[in-house]
Amino acid sequence: MFKKYDVIVAGAGHAGCEAAAAAANLGSSVLLITMNMGTIAQMSCNPAMGGVAKGQIVREVDALGGYSGIIADKTTIQFRMLNLSKGPAMWSPRAQNDRMRFAEEWRLALERTENLDMWQDTVTSLIVKNDTVCGVRTTLGVEIECNAVVLTNGTFLNGIIHIGEKRFGGGRTGEKSATGLTEQLVELGFEAGRMKTGTPPRIDGRSLNYSVMEEQWGDENPGRFSFTDVERPTEKRCCWITYTNNNVHETLKEGFEKSPMFTGRIKGLGPRYCPSIEDKINRFAERDRHQIFVEPEGFNTVEIYVNGFSTSLPEDVQYRALTQIPGFEKAKMFRPGYAIEYDYFPPTQLDLTLETKKIANLFLAGQINGTTGYEEAASQGLIAGINAHQKVHDLHELIMKRSESYIGVLIDDLVTKGTEEPYRMFTSRAEHRLLLRQDNADIRLSPIGHELGLISDERLDKVKQKVKNSDDIVSYTRTKSVDAAKLNPLLEELGTSTLNQNVKMFALLGRPQVAFDDLRKADASLEVLLSTYDKETVEQAEIKIKYESYFDKELEIVERMRKMEDKEINPEFNYHQLQSLSKEAREKLMRIKPRTLGQASRISGVSPSDISVLMVHISR
Amino acid sequence: MFKKYDVIVAGAGHAGCEAAAAAANLGSSVLLITMNMGTIAQMSCNPAMGGVAKGQIVREVDALGGYSGIIADKTTIQFRMLNLSKGPAMWSPRAQNDRMRFAEEWRLALERTENLDMWQDTVTSLIVKNDTVCGVRTTLGVEIECNAVVLTNGTFLNGIIHIGEKRFGGGRTGEKSATGLTEQLVELGFEAGRMKTGTPPRIDGRSLNYSVMEEQWGDENPGRFSFTDVERPTEKRCCWITYTNNNVHETLKEGFEKSPMFTGRIKGLGPRYCPSIEDKINRFAERDRHQIFVEPEGFNTVEIYVNGFSTSLPEDVQYRALTQIPGFEKAKMFRPGYAIEYDYFPPTQLDLTLETKKIANLFLAGQINGTTGYEEAASQGLIAGINAHQKVHDLHELIMKRSESYIGVLIDDLVTKGTEEPYRMFTSRAEHRLLLRQDNADIRLSPIGHELGLISDERLDKVKQKVKNSDDIVSYTRTKSVDAAKLNPLLEELGTSTLNQNVKMFALLGRPQVAFDDLRKADASLEVLLSTYDKETVEQAEIKIKYESYFDKELEIVERMRKMEDKEINPEFNYHQLQSLSKEAREKLMRIKPRTLGQASRISGVSPSDISVLMVHISR
Ligand SMILES: Cc1cc2nc3c(=O)[nH]c(=O)nc-3n(C[C@H](O)[C@H](O)[C@H](O)COP(=O)(O)OP(=O)(O)OC[C@H]3O[C@@H](n4cnc5c(N)ncnc54)[C@H](O)[C@@H]3O)c2cc1C
Ligand SMILES: Cc1cc2nc3c(=O)[nH]c(=O)nc-3n(C[C@H](O)[C@H](O)[C@H](O)COP(=O)(O)OP(=O)(O)OC[C@H]3O[C@@H](n4cnc5c(N)ncnc54)[C@H](O)[C@@H]3O)c2cc1C
Repeated sequence: MFKKYDVIVAGAGHAGCEAAAAAANLGSSVLLITMNMGTIAQMSCNPAMGGVAKGQIVREVDALGGYSGIIADKTTIQFRMLNLSKGPAMWSPRAQNDRMRFAEEWRLALERTENLDMWQDTVTSLIVKNDTVCGVRTTLGVEIECNAVVLTNGTFLNGIIHIGEKRFGGGRTGEKSATGLTEQLVELGFEAGRMKTGTPPRIDGRSLNYSVMEEQWGDENPGRFSFTDVERPTEKRCCWITYTNNNVHETLKEGFEKSPMFTGRIKGLGPRYCPSIEDKINRFAERDRHQIFVEPEGFNTVEIYVNGFSTSLPEDVQYRALTQIPGFEKAKMFRPGYAIEYDYFPPTQLDLTLETKKIANLFLAGQINGTTGYEEAASQGLIAGINAHQKVHDLHELIMKRSESYIGVLIDDLVTKGTEEPYRMFTSRAEHRLLLRQDNADIRLSPIGHELGLISDERLDKVKQKVKNSDDIVSYTRTKSVDAAKLNPLLEELGTSTLNQNVKMFALLGRPQVAFDDLRKADASLEVLLSTYDKETVEQAEIKIKYESYFDKELEIVERMRKMEDKEINPEFNYHQLQSLSKEAREKLMRIKPRTLGQASRISGVSPSDISVLMVHISR
Repeated sequence: MFKKYDVIVAGAGHAGCEAAAAAANLGSSVLLITMNMGTIAQMSCNPAMGGVAKGQIVREVDALGGYSGIIADKTTIQFRMLNLSKGPAMWSPRAQNDRMRFAEEWRLALERTENLDMWQDTVTSLIVKNDTVCGVRTTLGVEIECNAVVLTNGTFLNGIIHIGEKRFGGGRTGEKSATGLTEQLVELGFEAGRMKTGTPPRIDGRSLNYSVMEEQWGDENPGRFSFTDVERPTEKRCCWITYTNNNVHETLKEGFEKSPMFTGRIKGLGPRYCPSIEDKINRFAERDRHQIFVEPEGFNTVEIYVNGFSTSLPEDVQYRALTQIPGFEKAKMFRPGYAIEYDYFPPTQLDLTLETKKIANLFLAGQINGTTGYEEAASQGLIAGINAHQKVHDLHELIMKRSESYIGVLIDDLVTKGTEEPYRMFTSRAEHRLLLRQDNADIRLSPIGHELGLISDERLDKVKQKVKNSDDIVSYTRTKSVDAAKLNPLLEELGTSTLNQNVKMFALLGRPQVAFDDLRKADASLEVLLSTYDKETVEQAEIKIKYESYFDKELEIVERMRKMEDKEINPEFNYHQLQSLSKEAREKLMRIKPRTLGQASRISGVSPSDISVLMVHISR
């Protein structure tokens, strides 16, 4: 009934969709199996993409040829570039999305992808021969052969939903959980763990009093995630901000004795940086209010997402607490918040390609690896899909470097250090974040996507052109001087010291107060030049001019560390023979099997002296 | 946490959505509780509304102020008026719909309805006091008070899905079933039964070879369901027709020994008139082919609905058989067909208002009453929602007459005769079908909707105006003669005998060959008159002219039968005291508690002589 596929992807969440699309676009025959074709690419929690560090990831996914940025752009109801007051490394795109449209656009994009078949069913086990995966079995009792499998089960493996003292099996509210896979993987020798995550209640927007909340509109000239020309909705929607207060907190506390978290019914750890509201008032007892973002779920629906109010307290406590928030006095709930506990597989069991070390050709991506967030999931899916294709076709593997992408940081962190609690990305996790900016994701990664075959010649040429053009602009500012007398009134206006003599534009633009937009108004020749380029090219030039010295320093550091990062280690190296390594280091190194000295140095328990020992031995 | 509601509706299928909207629009405070807010108004089976007799029902629902016609119009991808070659009583509107859009538009329409709250949860039991329902309990453990409950659980009560020898619990594929309610109702003394229905596999449209199939486009000037001015999509989609053959049949037969139907694993009876393909080849062994309609599931999706190929055979048999259908040689399946078995409550336990006889203020509507079809479900939901509101507010009940609507026929059939197998509507079920046409549903029913408060003054005025205008046109044709000499060439062309003298237009239009459209071309004064009226008014006039004599005869019959139909019987009448009734009649009458002599006469087992006895007694 089914042909033998190159790659089977189990689960059409954010990870699975990217994995399937990437492998298919590279030319693999792909079967995407998912429990319900009506829930493809559901946003389980908030209808938003991006944010600090996460927005950078979405742009990276786009630059490598993934779909998430395109889908997000097509369905944006509000866009904001966060942190614009900080340096460009902190600029982070974030979009609110139309939940229904987002899922629909993903589904249609997959339907349009060649080599990609879909089958509605539940994968219950893998077919494994000689420690190599070669097919899957499903609830319908079908056996389907393939050369590689990508598991992207999200929160569905043995998922249990908690609301107050009630618990039900389920992968998301109203959906079934998936069983069988965990049990088989454990039998095969994998270690499995439990994590939890939570979601806030949803509200009938008609019952809210917006007049007492702060309006929050998106950017007037909204940016976007994708470097391609996606048609974006012209309409926008407003969000609102309100705050909890002591009454809200006191009411919530009344439910603590029934909290599945505080009473220990939930064993898995939750995401530290997306805490539930009960966690927040517990951990930050001194704070008398917490911010609540009131976010519409789409263009047309009245359903509201109460960002910041994730909770698994009993639904009546949720309700009573909510109605004490300004603007929520008459709130009507559509659905209560809940927590979900699910199985994950500690990601130290993976290679940097996201292939498992135990079972060849088996890849794991997304929440199943202990991460949280659509962006983290999507980027892993992309890499797993690429590597599944490469492996099956005897092509080189793709290992993303920490110095070239957040995706590299993410995967290296997971594989090298593991994670005890749901892992989400932050800019602080990237040592070279100055280089890993949202504005240059295309410059950093399109060549990789192109080399793989996911980015067209045309698209790469456009990136090269952008680099060249922005360099031209920079050169121009290095040679062209401004007329001091003519410019001084402007400088005064901008609150920066006036000039005594003509200086190069480059020098002037180095001042934080002076932007291209100011200078081009005062200098006709500059205006003429810049008007021939698009916004993003000009922005790229400006970022170079203002921050190049910092970037150069960072690049030097990268260069210096490259010695370690590029020093490859045979993954089969037998560390037990190196008695001069500490016992802990030997054990950890045997388990993680680092691919480079750099990776080895990041393994917790491997000390600098262990690294010196290693350096000597692997250099021989 | 919840206020006390006037009406709680359990289940947001086609019945539940109409029930909730109707009660809310009448002014009741309504809570619609459904398992998953993401699946509101899902079309479980084919993405199409209307068809023979069913299309009439949709127009009736619209004329009474329901939403189904509006939603169907908004999401139509292809529209056809079936049976146009027959008399107007057979004309039946049918639309293919965009499955995703249909559900989305329903959801948005409900969100826009005042007095209507929603809550995502599963109703597990009723709160009943003194044989009166006064609330519900849910999976989350919430108790919500109310004055009336409408149960519209569809195929979800103890639903079991069958594919070949495999069975899983579920209300639809990928969705959970609902438990608890049946058990409680049985404990309360209700009788429950089992029914089954099935659905065909879904196919990846990219894998089909359309060039060997017949194209089937919709009407060039598509009609619509709603009598309101709904904005309808301008784009259209094509369907295709192909056929099974002996090879397909032989392959299917190989799966018979694993068929859940033929092996007796499914006990419930299925819909006789939507048989599975295995049923068809079994029952009509002499036929060497069956028609297959290849229908797109929406504007953009490639998913295809294989109408005519409903099956619960093992999925590999489904697949092998499918690929022998011309055009399906390379078909790829997205989802297999399956059958579902579920609980229903024999509808003889209901009053004609759809209230249960045992528990006051408890209403049942839709598939739970043993019917099949979105239209049948929607219309019952509408009536149940209206009557729930009326009851709670001490207003008169709404009982639809058989002589005024298919809805009346449907409910009277269900309540009076019950049903052993899924009941679907046919024109043949209506004794007065000449009067129950799709073109006059607004004329028949808008006054009822208006009197209730679901149809605005303005809308009723429009209907009255349409009646008056069409009557004016008829009058005009009765007085105005045609010029025989001028007209004879046209008549010859139309293949009807020429005139020797001038005759009234009315007489000429009585000829089947002569339509308004012909005559107006030949007669300028008629053209001038007709051009001032809209298409539907002219059509109404034409129907009157051509068929009035038939209608009049039918109306006479209705008038004659009215004596029986209007003869009310006290539902509490004690038939046991009438020893002259047959024993069977006494028992049946006690159970059904007919509201009129007419209804009593339709109870199977009640003979004409029983009716004579009754007539004597209730006339006293
Ligand atoms: C209640 C809840 C709250 C959350 N809160 C947050 C939050 O606060 N912050 C945050 O960043 N993230 C949050 N998330 C996480 C976010 O939703 C996930 O990180 C993201 O969706 C993970 O994507 P994924 O592709 O790994 O898995 P998912 O999006 O979960 O998708 C998994 C898919 O696989 C399918 N599937 C599973 N098992 C099988 C099988 N055996 N066979 C076939 N198909 C299968 C499922 O049907 C589903 O389509 C939350 C998730 C949930 C459920
Ligand atoms: C597999 C299949 C095949 C079918 N084939 C045909 C066919 O060939 N021809 C035809 O005319 N019709 C067919 N139908 C029937 C058609 O889908 C139904 O007639 C129609 O959907 C009935 O509408 P409903 O409103 O009664 O119930 P449904 O549309 O079934 O809706 C029921 C709703 O109630 C919710 N619900 C159920 N229980 C609870 C609870 N306890 N608490 C809260 N919510 C609850 C469910 O989530 C769902 O939203 C088929 C249905 C199925 C499932």
